[in-house]
Amino acid sequence: MLDFFFKPRAIAVVGASREPGKVGHDVLKNLLDFKFPGAIYPVNPKAQEILGLKVYPSIKDLPQKVDLAIVAVRASFVPEVISLCGQKGIKGAVVLSSGFKEMGREGAKLEQELVKEARNYGIRVIGPNCLGILDTYSHLNATFAALKPLKGKIGFFSQSGALCLAVLEWSRAQKIGLSRFVSLGNKADISEIECLRALAEDPHTEIIMGYLEGIEDGRAFTEVAAEVSRKKPVIIFKSGTTAAGARAASSHTGSLAGSEEAFSASVKRARIIRAQTLREFFNLGLFFACNPPMSGPYLGILTNSGGPGIVAADACEKSSLELPTLPTETVEKLRKVLPPYASFYNPVDITGDSDAERYEKTLSLLLEDKSLNGLLVILSRTAMVDPEAVARILSDKKDIKPLAACFIGEESVRKARSHLLKKHIPHYEFPEEAVSAFEKAWIYEYRRKRPPVKIKRLKVDFEKAAQVLQTLRLEGRNHFLDHEVKQLLEAYGFAFPKSLLARTTDEALLAAKVIGYPVVLKVASPQVQHKTDIGGVRLNIKNDEELVKAFQEMIINVRKRLPGISVLGVIVQEMVPKGKEVIVGFLRDPQFGPMVMFGLGGIYVEVMKDVTFNLAPLSKEEALEMIREIKAYPVLKGIRGEPEVDMNALARSIVAMGQLVSDFPELSEGEVNPLIVGPKGSKTIAVDARLSLGGEK
Amino acid sequence: MLDFFFKPRAIAVVGASREPGKVGHDVLKNLLDFKFPGAIYPVNPKAQEILGLKVYPSIKDLPQKVDLAIVAVRASFVPEVISLCGQKGIKGAVVLSSGFKEMGREGAKLEQELVKEARNYGIRVIGPNCLGILDTYSHLNATFAALKPLKGKIGFFSQSGALCLAVLEWSRAQKIGLSRFVSLGNKADISEIECLRALAEDPHTEIIMGYLEGIEDGRAFTEVAAEVSRKKPVIIFKSGTTAAGARAASSHTGSLAGSEEAFSASVKRARIIRAQTLREFFNLGLFFACNPPMSGPYLGILTNSGGPGIVAADACEKSSLELPTLPTETVEKLRKVLPPYASFYNPVDITGDSDAERYEKTLSLLLEDKSLNGLLVILSRTAMVDPEAVARILSDKKDIKPLAACFIGEESVRKARSHLLKKHIPHYEFPEEAVSAFEKAWIYEYRRKRPPVKIKRLKVDFEKAAQVLQTLRLEGRNHFLDHEVKQLLEAYGFAFPKSLLARTTDEALLAAKVIGYPVVLKVASPQVQHKTDIGGVRLNIKNDEELVKAFQEMIINVRKRLPGISVLGVIVQEMVPKGKEVIVGFLRDPQFGPMVMFGLGGIYVEVMKDVTFNLAPLSKEEALEMIREIKAYPVLKGIRGEPEVDMNALARSIVAMGQLVSDFPELSEGEVNPLIVGPKGSKTIAVDARLSLGGEK
Repeated sequence: MLDFFFKPRAIAVVGASREPGKVGHDVLKNLLDFKFPGAIYPVNPKAQEILGLKVYPSIKDLPQKVDLAIVAVRASFVPEVISLCGQKGIKGAVVLSSGFKEMGREGAKLEQELVKEARNYGIRVIGPNCLGILDTYSHLNATFAALKPLKGKIGFFSQSGALCLAVLEWSRAQKIGLSRFVSLGNKADISEIECLRALAEDPHTEIIMGYLEGIEDGRAFTEVAAEVSRKKPVIIFKSGTTAAGARAASSHTGSLAGSEEAFSASVKRARIIRAQTLREFFNLGLFFACNPPMSGPYLGILTNSGGPGIVAADACEKSSLELPTLPTETVEKLRKVLPPYASFYNPVDITGDSDAERYEKTLSLLLEDKSLNGLLVILSRTAMVDPEAVARILSDKKDIKPLAACFIGEESVRKARSHLLKKHIPHYEFPEEAVSAFEKAWIYEYRRKRPPVKIKRLKVDFEKAAQVLQTLRLEGRNHFLDHEVKQLLEAYGFAFPKSLLARTTDEALLAAKVIGYPVVLKVASPQVQHKTDIGGVRLNIKNDEELVKAFQEMIINVRKRLPGISVLGVIVQEMVPKGKEVIVGFLRDPQFGPMVMFGLGGIYVEVMKDVTFNLAPLSKEEALEMIREIKAYPVLKGIRGEPEVDMNALARSIVAMGQLVSDFPELSEGEVNPLIVGPKGSKTIAVDARLSLGGEK
Repeated sequence: MLDFFFKPRAIAVVGASREPGKVGHDVLKNLLDFKFPGAIYPVNPKAQEILGLKVYPSIKDLPQKVDLAIVAVRASFVPEVISLCGQKGIKGAVVLSSGFKEMGREGAKLEQELVKEARNYGIRVIGPNCLGILDTYSHLNATFAALKPLKGKIGFFSQSGALCLAVLEWSRAQKIGLSRFVSLGNKADISEIECLRALAEDPHTEIIMGYLEGIEDGRAFTEVAAEVSRKKPVIIFKSGTTAAGARAASSHTGSLAGSEEAFSASVKRARIIRAQTLREFFNLGLFFACNPPMSGPYLGILTNSGGPGIVAADACEKSSLELPTLPTETVEKLRKVLPPYASFYNPVDITGDSDAERYEKTLSLLLEDKSLNGLLVILSRTAMVDPEAVARILSDKKDIKPLAACFIGEESVRKARSHLLKKHIPHYEFPEEAVSAFEKAWIYEYRRKRPPVKIKRLKVDFEKAAQVLQTLRLEGRNHFLDHEVKQLLEAYGFAFPKSLLARTTDEALLAAKVIGYPVVLKVASPQVQHKTDIGGVRLNIKNDEELVKAFQEMIINVRKRLPGISVLGVIVQEMVPKGKEVIVGFLRDPQFGPMVMFGLGGIYVEVMKDVTFNLAPLSKEEALEMIREIKAYPVLKGIRGEPEVDMNALARSIVAMGQLVSDFPELSEGEVNPLIVGPKGSKTIAVDARLSLGGEK
């Protein structure tokens, strides 16, 4: 995919320049310096030769078989250049020029023209307003960055040029290098989605890292990422996740940031390794680039100093990793090589008088120990220990299990750190950051091994639901009547309390027979707002006798308190069983599409914000995961001897809601609130609900 | 305080050695190299001269007027050395030797002996098992660390030798330097508390940093820290805050970690700046060492690259800082110096084609703008900008308001970063970390300016409460009877529902008259467990008529359902008004002493862990702060049109609970649960309560 970008046979540099410091010069120089093996054709009407290459006055004059154009002309000329490139049969253009959407309205118009020309001639565009692209394996450095890239296994894409530069420098400094690199710029044509695909297919790319500010097609992004992440770790840092950040992002590349909730759901579904800070982004890249998979949560910690060991243990306990006690055999073996005052538990503290040999012996034993899935090695610079010797020992024992080192200090451990990085042992300045990298590696591996999400359609009455919506359309209405909300949701398996209007006691008895005891009576009168206040509600009526009595009392009561009002009769309603009140809702994210929402009813959602989201439609397993994710989950599991609610029934409701919002794009928002879920086997009842159409908001 | 440690006239080095690499040699060499101006007397029975100094065979042979002994002999000799030092009139000893509590039971015994000798002769001891102490202003380097310390304004103490070394290196690398430094080691005698005091009094120490694993006397620590932090920022990193960390800590220096809740409460009370990670610890030290106070929450961000600007904006929005829009005057001025495509909002994005001059002009305007309390300057390395020039500009404009820089990159910004550090402009590799430092600086300043906590005693019936406890003591009981719990809490102002036993309807009418309607009736029978099930409870009885009827019905009902049981009569009880259920409790932390606890009742505390703690006794303001701290606070404020609860009454209950636990050390744990708090003016009612004595647990 997009091979004409990453493995072109011949390249044109449109707007090539003689002047160092100009984009059109620097990109040409980079192409030459990085030893691009194919032909390079500078284009410039005013020059004969640049950097020893023959210059072509116009795109029209280029020889045939150019795949890729690098464009560095003034913004206003770009649309025409694209058109000429297209006419010449060039397949891809990387537009380095700025002056488009990022510059305001005029620029946005220019960008639209650019896209129009590209579509017209079927030419694909990366950028504009970007730093360029590179593929270290095909010797392509089509960027105007000053730094020479290092060959490696990280494929990187970024919406920010500044981050591109940062990653270039970082990948050199950490000695891990890059395979491919795409500066997406304004994403006028090619987006992160195609980029992800191209990196997924590239055999030299083993880890994918991406910096994003906005995701336009969140749905497609999630699908592609989910596919890719089964094979290669995908590490994403997304900014613009807060209101202030989103404002800044929109004034930057004109991105729409998308909601944080939607992106979080996407991350879950797609097994994306999400970095929460820029530092973590780099830390994770380093870890994944250097280590085999972290196959379990059990971390071993080896240290020669108590303090940093405790800090690492704290970090571990706060994470989803575990710090297991070592098996007796290992402890026995350790006793033979360590002094008696060492700590044989985990962290294994070999104490401040350790030399490199003690490190080596302990390390061997801990690496052999199959109960540990990864090992963190901490070193404090004492007079007794040679950090470089320990670094050499570590690099000799690489790849047995995931390793990270934390050599505390600055100048005194600099050489040892360099050695570690050269040998691809990830090094972190502080223990907490190393622990966090192990954790993310484990979570990724755990999710990667889970079977892919399979969404089974529930049996629903699609036709009935469609009919309700059809009625609204025909009548030109944009809001639902109460009974339509019920009909629609009932079609998708939600049950509302049954109810019938009874004008006489006989009718009431008949209604109760149909509905089944226990029932609730409510006075039916258009003039009565607060039924309870005037004795207009009676709960838990268990038999005919009680029903007749309650009916008569209620009528008398209401007539006495509000003389002269019109009473239509009494509503006989199914008594809602005892259970927990939950909310199952949906909404439609502009970027990520239909989503479901779940939480415990009332203030759990309103005040405690204890609510979780996922993309719709979703699988039953995902729905069950949502249930487990909320903090109030123990309430559903049953506290104080209460029985567990019917998790399957609840999951079914969530799945059904996901199916509903996916089936009908015209539904914009809605919820069943409260939905009453009782113990296993009991009926799940929707007490109240609302639905909105897209036009309403 | 402790001036004989930090400004000694003469020092003895007991266990001085000729052999480089030995502690007794290296510490002597450090003293000499750092040009200690007073006399230095090496003590060693087997040497004549070391490093050009005359050696004394024994402590007894020392000349008079030695203030300080540095002890580096084998552990088993240390107690005797301390005794001899004491006899000689030496005031302080720094024991570098290890082999004490950290080595197990034998070592712990040795440490006890050490302490005994010290107490015997009134000699104060730092250590054992420590790296030493230093005071850069009195040219005292009594450590055996290989690195030469830099003079500066940070006073540092640490329970971990490894962290001591790390701070030494860091303070050199960041060019901020140290004033004093204490390696606490096992804290056999001198603890963090005296250390804090000594640093507070030292005029050269402007910022205090401390690394702690355990705090023995949390109460005294909090008091001293609260006093000190009004004058100097106190930055603390505490490890051992999780179960795993605490286990590791106890096997390290034998520390008891103390509970996380107690330490958090102490941090709040004492205005401690708490670092959550080791990196943050160093980041904060740098910020405070370089900047004037952050007097408000308004941060300005200046950047030449969109991406990192967005990342900073996100971080700001997640923090308690604000990112204000700039005043019109400033925007107008900016328009004159910036290109039209720049972003004039906040972050101010001067775009990638900026040079140093554009940075200078923008910087001047933003520093002049009084609406900003601090400024973060981000730079991405482009071809157009000279990072060193920008670094110079920043250092020229220092001290107008708090500043931090974030120059993104590695090698390409190294020199600029060095320049910044040399000029004391704090530099952070990533925007989020800079924002977090600004935030902590603002929170510190905000808390520092608040008036100190003044705790007023509530009027309570201390005598009555003391009498209840006296009864328990006299009767040799270690648990309370129900009515004793009530009496004790009533003495401290908690009100329980009034209730009386009535055997006849007449008695019931009388009881209701005393209690006041509405009342509740409950059948009184030792044989009835679940009163409600047999119709033995009637709520909300409003008048005499209803009372008589309910009384008679209840007796008949119960007799019918449970014939033959003995009925003592009926309890007439005050009807508990409607309100919110909260929990007000107390406990006693082994290190931090009495504490109060507050949260919303039921699953808010049990499941959602939405609970907050403070040290007791506490002020009304602190109690009100606790109320505001819980997540469910909006529930108390009133949601869905409900009235706000009586905050003052609630705060009073919390304060009373704090007073109770402080007044009676024998109370170990207790709570009123639920306490019903209604709207302003209504009565606050304790429905249930429990109290435990120290012996019980």
